Amino acid sequence: MLSVLVIDESRSRAAEICAGLALAGYQVAAILADSANLTAEVEKLQPDVILIDTESPSRDTLENLAVVHKDMPRPVVIFTQEDGQNAIRDAVRAGVSAYIVDGLDPKRIKPIVDVARARFEDTQAMRRELEEVSRKLSDRKLVDKAKGILMKARGLDEEAAYHAMRKLAMERGQNMARVARDVIDMARVLL
Amino acid sequence: MLSVLVIDESRSRAAEICAGLALAGYQVAAILADSANLTAEVEKLQPDVILIDTESPSRDTLENLAVVHKDMPRPVVIFTQEDGQNAIRDAVRAGVSAYIVDGLDPKRIKPIVDVARARFEDTQAMRRELEEVSRKLSDRKLVDKAKGILMKARGLDEEAAYHAMRKLAMERGQNMARVARDVIDMARVLL
Repeated sequence: MLSVLVIDESRSRAAEICAGLALAGYQVAAILADSANLTAEVEKLQPDVILIDTESPSRDTLENLAVVHKDMPRPVVIFTQEDGQNAIRDAVRAGVSAYIVDGLDPKRIKPIVDVARARFEDTQAMRRELEEVSRKLSDRKLVDKAKGILMKARGLDEEAAYHAMRKLAMERGQNMARVARDVIDMARVLL
Repeated sequence: MLSVLVIDESRSRAAEICAGLALAGYQVAAILADSANLTAEVEKLQPDVILIDTESPSRDTLENLAVVHKDMPRPVVIFTQEDGQNAIRDAVRAGVSAYIVDGLDPKRIKPIVDVARARFEDTQAMRRELEEVSRKLSDRKLVDKAKGILMKARGLDEEAAYHAMRKLAMERGQNMARVARDVIDMARVLL
């Protein structure tokens, strides 16, 4: 059963949302009146989804969401009356998966949360791919640089320099990037 | 003025949508009854946004959208009654920026299209970053490989091999990756 952390300034609207979530088969992890302790609460409760209902998402709320998005990403749904294009852009950039203007209707909560979850998964997959490719590129740059240092310092050809690092990596049980970083750092003090 | 391509099986709902778009200050590029000629129409009309209203998005519609998403990406909004999780996931994967279940209300069209556009821009920025980093990585692999070939074939050290390619790139007015590719191809026939 998916758990949802609800943040709502209004008690009556929070009640409406909880009814909608219950009908949709979701569990309410907690109801908060504001997002002041958002990161601590997310860390404690580990909700599957964060649902915020607010007249207008404040600067603080978006900043708190951006922190959560970075450290403990999960789908975020915002129901609001704020339809300004800047507000919308800022919310999307803070990682909000669904930004719903004037559309809080308990019957529609389930598909909205489902779409937010699908969108979140899709975005996270792209983010992971981006991290993976970026890591490969920076690893490759490190290994190249270390290889160059070894070639120069010990008069090795490229292949021999690569194999020297490879051997060290195996002996230490470390990956090539880690060994390359050490070669670069140590060359600075040793050579 | 942003132009919207509307695809709707129902003439009466299409009329409702057009009224909502007009109120929101959007221009209707065309109204199609189905997505059969979607790619050709998008190419011809170059709409800023694609808006689809359908009982349930068909396999064909999603495939057409995926083609548009790949070749001529733009924000896509779907209004539908289909709330199955697989349908939602497939639509999100086909690049749909907003998937709205049971929420067609002319008054809400403007914020929905605005959110879809913001989401689209955000996703496109990440996609471009991914393409850029991936290209850098594959360029680097090519240049490395070509450098290795030159070092071996001509007994050059790494720096000299790099400079030989760099010189050729400048003479030809080409980038290093292009020169590297040629070095690799030519080595296959020349050496």
